[in-house]
Amino acid sequence: MDPPTQISHLALDIGGTLVKLVYFSSNGSEEESRNGCCSVVKGRLCFAKFETRKIDDCLEFIRFNILQHSGVQHQNGAVHDYLSVKATGGGAFKFADLFKEKLGILFDKQDEMHSLVGGVNFLLKTVPREAFTYLDGQKEFVEIDHNDLYPYLLVNIGSGVSMIKVDGDGKYERISGTSLGGGTFLGLGKLLTKCKSFDELLELSHHGNNRVIDMLVGDIYGGTDYSKIGLSSTAIASSFGKAISDGKELEDYQPEDVARSLLRMISNNIGQIAYLNALRFGLKRIFFGGFFIRGLEYTMDTISVAVHFWSRGEAKAMFLRHEGFLGALGAFTSYETRSNNDSKPQHHTVQRAILNCSGDDSFRHIPVTSNLNDSETIECSISLV
Amino acid sequence: MDPPTQISHLALDIGGTLVKLVYFSSNGSEEESRNGCCSVVKGRLCFAKFETRKIDDCLEFIRFNILQHSGVQHQNGAVHDYLSVKATGGGAFKFADLFKEKLGILFDKQDEMHSLVGGVNFLLKTVPREAFTYLDGQKEFVEIDHNDLYPYLLVNIGSGVSMIKVDGDGKYERISGTSLGGGTFLGLGKLLTKCKSFDELLELSHHGNNRVIDMLVGDIYGGTDYSKIGLSSTAIASSFGKAISDGKELEDYQPEDVARSLLRMISNNIGQIAYLNALRFGLKRIFFGGFFIRGLEYTMDTISVAVHFWSRGEAKAMFLRHEGFLGALGAFTSYETRSNNDSKPQHHTVQRAILNCSGDDSFRHIPVTSNLNDSETIECSISLV
Repeated sequence: MDPPTQISHLALDIGGTLVKLVYFSSNGSEEESRNGCCSVVKGRLCFAKFETRKIDDCLEFIRFNILQHSGVQHQNGAVHDYLSVKATGGGAFKFADLFKEKLGILFDKQDEMHSLVGGVNFLLKTVPREAFTYLDGQKEFVEIDHNDLYPYLLVNIGSGVSMIKVDGDGKYERISGTSLGGGTFLGLGKLLTKCKSFDELLELSHHGNNRVIDMLVGDIYGGTDYSKIGLSSTAIASSFGKAISDGKELEDYQPEDVARSLLRMISNNIGQIAYLNALRFGLKRIFFGGFFIRGLEYTMDTISVAVHFWSRGEAKAMFLRHEGFLGALGAFTSYETRSNNDSKPQHHTVQRAILNCSGDDSFRHIPVTSNLNDSETIECSISLV
Repeated sequence: MDPPTQISHLALDIGGTLVKLVYFSSNGSEEESRNGCCSVVKGRLCFAKFETRKIDDCLEFIRFNILQHSGVQHQNGAVHDYLSVKATGGGAFKFADLFKEKLGILFDKQDEMHSLVGGVNFLLKTVPREAFTYLDGQKEFVEIDHNDLYPYLLVNIGSGVSMIKVDGDGKYERISGTSLGGGTFLGLGKLLTKCKSFDELLELSHHGNNRVIDMLVGDIYGGTDYSKIGLSSTAIASSFGKAISDGKELEDYQPEDVARSLLRMISNNIGQIAYLNALRFGLKRIFFGGFFIRGLEYTMDTISVAVHFWSRGEAKAMFLRHEGFLGALGAFTSYETRSNNDSKPQHHTVQRAILNCSGDDSFRHIPVTSNLNDSETIECSISLV
């Protein structure tokens, strides 16, 4: 029989669209570290996500799947003391009262950008085969030399998009961003296609043809290129531009074609703005993260092509396997430091912990053959200090 | 009684969305130039536009309002020889056969970028009070020192957007662009609001409130700023981002709010990409042209604020009163040079002409108090050489 699941650490990233959870589930074995300074617990990092608008589902999940196994469940739902948990994203402010009232959870708020950068640095330094390029249908894992990691551009595509120049651990600057992000894709997508969810919209876009609605260079030039300035006849001159003249209404278009044009428009725009910002600071590597991408090949391909096209091959778009959980992972790694609530009375604070995913052959990363989903975990250990 | 209208020169710019016409209408007076080398004809430069999808309206307009007064009208519609006319834009290729067949007009094709730049340079050098800034509701005309005009960035917002670095007369390079342009605004706008025309959609956007659909920083952060990185609570975090969570369908939103969000999204995006490109080449002045703007204050304000915000006040957005006719004006100025068709038999070629709008006190620019519309003209003269 498996030992009972013991969940000891939880971190949340509550964005405008999604709530992302990372938590540590031990397999019951705990041993003293080699140098005897702390105890090492083996287990898994687990991931889960919920739509922010369905925050109650998230609360229920935490109540029944995490608090019950964390040893701090309050009997009869009565709150005797507060559990201090790392949280980041705008929702760490917005939903602080809700989590306190409903679950007795008090957020130890972590800065959003700081968590993002912390999460990416952790992944790039610790988790093997984390970063990869995607071009012409080819996924290729990239070996990152830890001594040659910085500087890089981090483009986090959430509801909106943040672009952060990262120069080291805790050394970063938000240099740009755009409001055309995942929220725009899903928001416009829902209005245009009646899709209910991000996944449904992405699935739809997979089967569409953007040329039905996008105005191509060839549509303006009567089928020919505008070769003098290097624009081929198939380049998109105007996203959704064909809808102006077709005499068609929304209902006359296939929703999959609409979804495809939308995905292409937003991915291409993000790729272009990212490249222009990388150029400003001479950054050759651009990591794209956030829940917008979801390992979707067409999205990655569009972003890669945009970066490749505008940079004339100089800059490279890279993706991360755990792209959706960067902020939550960063918040998790902050368990390494003391909580602001540690010294306060009536606060049940979680033990400080250092997360380790490599450096010990006995821990391997579970190979991810397809795209990451919530059930996929990272084998790891935490050192309780 | 007024002397009969005599129209002598016509130039067209046929884009993916609109056909723009510029033509010279003389007031009947013709005199020899001071140095006796040519004759000078006084008159007006006139402007007209049509939707490209209604190209037949344009053909009719040219047949009845231009050809009839040009002295080259073919009797009974029979084509005896071809009238050579300057034309630019993708439609100069796409509709060449149509104009030849229906009107006996043969396009002397002018390169699109070359015409755009020619048009802007002509306006900036020749037409007083052409360029202006717009910020915080204040329109301010800019005196352009002809010796300090170059380099500048020209952002032409047609169906798509071209960004051109201009270094002198005929010296330019298309350095960037975006597919999110006027065609995207109208295309998405028609699908989302059932508006039939650009003007209707703009009028609608005038009465809307983008905050109904856009996700603001404050919506994510529970009403507070994300002050650490300088994002105020009212900054747009995600365009159309609120549509993901409202549980509303398209019909539940006011079309004016949708139109407003769309206008803001596209204007802001163009402003940002323009600024990033200006930065690459150290360009302090950015001129925005094309029919997207139409002198609309909210559009200009959004673009100006975007340029101001991203450049921290370093770069300036400027607008042009004849913004919609840049390519057509540039094509018109090419009457100065010999046509490719001049030497061909059976081609009625229009006399070479140099356009003058200033330098002679007797010609004044008709003051435009409101926004330019088709009935507004520029007093000028042409020197027939």
